Amino acid sequence: MLEKYSIRTDLALEQKERFESDNVEVPGVVLDESYDDEKEIRTTTVKIETENGAKTMGKPVGTYITMEAPNMTVPDEGYHEEISEELLKHLKQFAHLEKKDYSVLVVGLGNRKVTPDALGPYVVDNLNITRHIVKEYGKYAMGEDQARLVSAIVPGVMGQTGMETVEILKGVVEETKPDLLIAIDALAARSSRRLNSTIQIADTGINPGSGVGNHRNAITEDTVGVPVIAIGVPTVVDAATIVNDTMENLIEALETSETLKGVGVVMQGYNAAEKYELIKELISPHLNGLFVTPKDIDETVKRISFTISESLNMLFSGGHAHNR
Amino acid sequence: MLEKYSIRTDLALEQKERFESDNVEVPGVVLDESYDDEKEIRTTTVKIETENGAKTMGKPVGTYITMEAPNMTVPDEGYHEEISEELLKHLKQFAHLEKKDYSVLVVGLGNRKVTPDALGPYVVDNLNITRHIVKEYGKYAMGEDQARLVSAIVPGVMGQTGMETVEILKGVVEETKPDLLIAIDALAARSSRRLNSTIQIADTGINPGSGVGNHRNAITEDTVGVPVIAIGVPTVVDAATIVNDTMENLIEALETSETLKGVGVVMQGYNAAEKYELIKELISPHLNGLFVTPKDIDETVKRISFTISESLNMLFSGGHAHNR
Amino acid sequence: MLEKYSIRTDLALEQKERFESDNVEVPGVVLDESYDDEKEIRTTTVKIETENGAKTMGKPVGTYITMEAPNMTVPDEGYHEEISEELLKHLKQFAHLEKKDYSVLVVGLGNRKVTPDALGPYVVDNLNITRHIVKEYGKYAMGEDQARLVSAIVPGVMGQTGMETVEILKGVVEETKPDLLIAIDALAARSSRRLNSTIQIADTGINPGSGVGNHRNAITEDTVGVPVIAIGVPTVVDAATIVNDTMENLIEALETSETLKGVGVVMQGYNAAEKYELIKELISPHLNGLFVTPKDIDETVKRISFTISESLNMLFSGGHAHNR
Amino acid sequence: MLEKYSIRTDLALEQKERFESDNVEVPGVVLDESYDDEKEIRTTTVKIETENGAKTMGKPVGTYITMEAPNMTVPDEGYHEEISEELLKHLKQFAHLEKKDYSVLVVGLGNRKVTPDALGPYVVDNLNITRHIVKEYGKYAMGEDQARLVSAIVPGVMGQTGMETVEILKGVVEETKPDLLIAIDALAARSSRRLNSTIQIADTGINPGSGVGNHRNAITEDTVGVPVIAIGVPTVVDAATIVNDTMENLIEALETSETLKGVGVVMQGYNAAEKYELIKELISPHLNGLFVTPKDIDETVKRISFTISESLNMLFSGGHAHNR
Repeated sequence: MLEKYSIRTDLALEQKERFESDNVEVPGVVLDESYDDEKEIRTTTVKIETENGAKTMGKPVGTYITMEAPNMTVPDEGYHEEISEELLKHLKQFAHLEKKDYSVLVVGLGNRKVTPDALGPYVVDNLNITRHIVKEYGKYAMGEDQARLVSAIVPGVMGQTGMETVEILKGVVEETKPDLLIAIDALAARSSRRLNSTIQIADTGINPGSGVGNHRNAITEDTVGVPVIAIGVPTVVDAATIVNDTMENLIEALETSETLKGVGVVMQGYNAAEKYELIKELISPHLNGLFVTPKDIDETVKRISFTISESLNMLFSGGHAHNR
Repeated sequence: MLEKYSIRTDLALEQKERFESDNVEVPGVVLDESYDDEKEIRTTTVKIETENGAKTMGKPVGTYITMEAPNMTVPDEGYHEEISEELLKHLKQFAHLEKKDYSVLVVGLGNRKVTPDALGPYVVDNLNITRHIVKEYGKYAMGEDQARLVSAIVPGVMGQTGMETVEILKGVVEETKPDLLIAIDALAARSSRRLNSTIQIADTGINPGSGVGNHRNAITEDTVGVPVIAIGVPTVVDAATIVNDTMENLIEALETSETLKGVGVVMQGYNAAEKYELIKELISPHLNGLFVTPKDIDETVKRISFTISESLNMLFSGGHAHNR
Repeated sequence: MLEKYSIRTDLALEQKERFESDNVEVPGVVLDESYDDEKEIRTTTVKIETENGAKTMGKPVGTYITMEAPNMTVPDEGYHEEISEELLKHLKQFAHLEKKDYSVLVVGLGNRKVTPDALGPYVVDNLNITRHIVKEYGKYAMGEDQARLVSAIVPGVMGQTGMETVEILKGVVEETKPDLLIAIDALAARSSRRLNSTIQIADTGINPGSGVGNHRNAITEDTVGVPVIAIGVPTVVDAATIVNDTMENLIEALETSETLKGVGVVMQGYNAAEKYELIKELISPHLNGLFVTPKDIDETVKRISFTISESLNMLFSGGHAHNR
Repeated sequence: MLEKYSIRTDLALEQKERFESDNVEVPGVVLDESYDDEKEIRTTTVKIETENGAKTMGKPVGTYITMEAPNMTVPDEGYHEEISEELLKHLKQFAHLEKKDYSVLVVGLGNRKVTPDALGPYVVDNLNITRHIVKEYGKYAMGEDQARLVSAIVPGVMGQTGMETVEILKGVVEETKPDLLIAIDALAARSSRRLNSTIQIADTGINPGSGVGNHRNAITEDTVGVPVIAIGVPTVVDAATIVNDTMENLIEALETSETLKGVGVVMQGYNAAEKYELIKELISPHLNGLFVTPKDIDETVKRISFTISESLNMLFSGGHAHNR
């Protein structure tokens, strides 16, 4: 949901990169990277293994897979089936759906009426919902001997409901007792380069803010009582972030430029924190509550929602691909 | 929700009329009627006072107010404020909101994507939601010394969620503990004459099917744990109902027509049940699952949703009218 | 558009059947039927060859292909690709797009805000629009050596625009000079059995009302100046039609029933016209302006819109199938 | 439409301010300002009177009224009726609708599916359309002795239609011959402070890009053949603009700061153009095609669309206010 703009980034990968750029090793955090030449997808797995790692990263212990697929921003003739299939692989690994009968609740987070925040609701629109059919007619009604009960909800955002999303979900989980919750959410990226070209899958649920610990509004196994897989795509960047980035570029230029040596000298007198303070002061207070998103966000969000809904439909129908 | 089409009518008034047309007094059911000349609204209160009355009527014990306002189908320059105000009066009487602080959950039932079923969701779209603000900033943030916590949810229909609506609501009520639930729903009328021109307010909640008793899918104090006020507007008629009505006209014509006396004689040999069977046989099975609604339903549902949302906004803001 | 409800049927096939049921040969009208066992699609071609045939049929001279595909009402795992491909075959035949460069304007008729009438707008939502790209970057920008300029418009209905659709289209055609117009429209069927399971393709454009001749509101080569292919799917039935049908059944039953012989005798005294008058009298005036449609019309219209948009996208991209 | 992002600002007022900040008088441009204490609306009229003024301003000769109403971003109990009425005053002055019978075409520009760009389409959704009624039943059907024919169109954006909006409008104007065109559009502001709090009314139509002269895609009397009044509200800021502004602040701070005197010295060696070049180099190319908008844009655009549609409805109904 866009409500999380105050966070600099929702991507564990970007959090990790921040430390890398400072040449800092983060103990308790393991990184694994691979690149699929054919599909042009870079996959990075960030495993936060210890509480110390979690504290440093500002994200709970767990596994975060990031698929970077620049093609996702470009229309193909369909919905980028190759990315759907890659996502399916990771979902299978996370979902542990080998048990014969299971029940999944898919949650489409976000505000359907703000285009870049509508990703979650759009994904839910295209799911094959089966729970009510299996409940009424039995699993054989689905032509399967395995009862996969798929239910879904689009809870809306707090401005529309007056309720924390986790309040709604806790109640629904208690009543309908799914084995697993899968939450789809539009994220805020740190870098505009990652907009609409990245999918993050995490087994840690949704953790608003930078908090580790059991934030009361988190949507996690701790708060809702069943495991939560989160699928997120960054569709916006915080306006302040974009300004900040360019200003950091400027300062760097000032520090290194030959012709601007004088400035360099002065700026080097500032440490990182002081520079950040300087920037913060200069960033207009009007930027608060503003987000940045591409002009063609309507087409992009619609297409990516298919990429994700197809992965989920395949996951629930036993994993074989099909068209549309 | 349109899911209730199997019921002949959702209006207690129409249920009552059925008995009247048979000249049958219904013990345990009290009727009160009044007409407002200026506003052109006929208001009928049906009080079902005993379990016997409930059994006969096929509706639970409680009070059902029906406002018949034919003007509601006709655009005025706004949203029919005069009807909003009349509705407000009845809501005040039902809601018992005299206590200083209270919390209400408004539920927009129905399917946003099927025009005549979108009434509930549209009403919620236009409510002033306050619960999250009061929770975060205190009641004085609202400029009031009374904390009215208004929350709302659009749960979707079973085909979209795989869950019974009552499952969702039970959970949400348990978590957020409102004092009162107000459910807005598109209804099925028996008579096309009542389409979009009638508002029913009931203190009995939503009782799908003809069931009295605690139907498992009912949305009532019994099932969700807090009182439930239901506001409904008939926006569709069951296709089978419309056919049935015209056929009854035909049979009546056949029975009474001078030129068709021969038929009359024969038909009189049938009792009501037999005639109904004859009709049912003739009604195409293709009519099953079909509903009837007016061509201009988009404009009508939009306008009526304002009529209702304004009543609710006035109810929650202390009862004084304001524009739009 | 739903505005055409006053017509009994928009399907040439149903018009033809009416005569057949009366065992009347229609001179100047040629019928051809075939059935595809594998795809379960019955295809009927009605060719109206003479002005006399046109007068009798109440439809202009031209070719009307009707694909009856009962599976279309049932969800498959995609969008019924087999029907898309069949539709493509007929479109190729009608569109004569063999010339190297061409320009097509697709028109999504109907009201986006009334679910069964939203078919045309939904189809346009999923088209690959290319005209502006070819205009700006040349045809090679599309990776093709053939410049197919696809443009599209959703003009809205008269209640929204205050204008006849043909006024809008005439102007747009004059300015943008396409070689061909393809209009997608939701139709009214005569039989509820055909709802959402039939596609009609006609090379005669859109002819509202039963009029042959150049009705001023028709969307045809005569009125807009370029050939018009019409693709229509019946998504509603006129409420009066449904009532009428059942009443005809009743009368027939009365006429043939052993136990109702008396009636039979009397009714046989009526000719068809008199029976129709009797029925018309009995049909409630409240039925005027009402239409009948299925409860799951949201899902159905969405799915069928993909079936059609994929056919069109294949048509414009050179005819090879691909997955959405 | 958001397509105009390449322009720094769509507001004549901001264009004027730019010169003011440089202490430059612009010959041929007359400014008039007033402030309404009660309504808290600042109204600025920029009159570009000569071709030279037009060249300097980068906007055609004509009158541009800007209403700055910071309250517009804040929900009231309705749709800010006081702003509607103020807007009505300016529209009356521009529209010259004193002649007895007239015909107006309202155009809702922009992309309905991208929230901040949906303002124009939303305004059209709430207009009282009368042209078709007057055409069919005569002016007395409207209960008026003056025939005001109101028609409207939502043409869509080029990515959806493949056509320039002006191509569509030219054709429609030619066919339906309105006396006046009123175009509603979401604009790009230069300053985030003006987002959703400003309405610009201009008698010069819509002029994309900074071009004076008859740009081929302009929507003006020159291109469509009838006078065009443009109503615009800035709902987005170009991402590059926001970054640019903050960087200018930084540079200014560097130049004036006591502690950063060294930098100051160096930067003063750069002239304005060189500074702009430096900034441009530093702004990420990824910012191209990105826009900035507030998180609550859904509610804001919906409310402002009512403010404008009510003004228009009052204008067309003879100018007396009523409550929506």
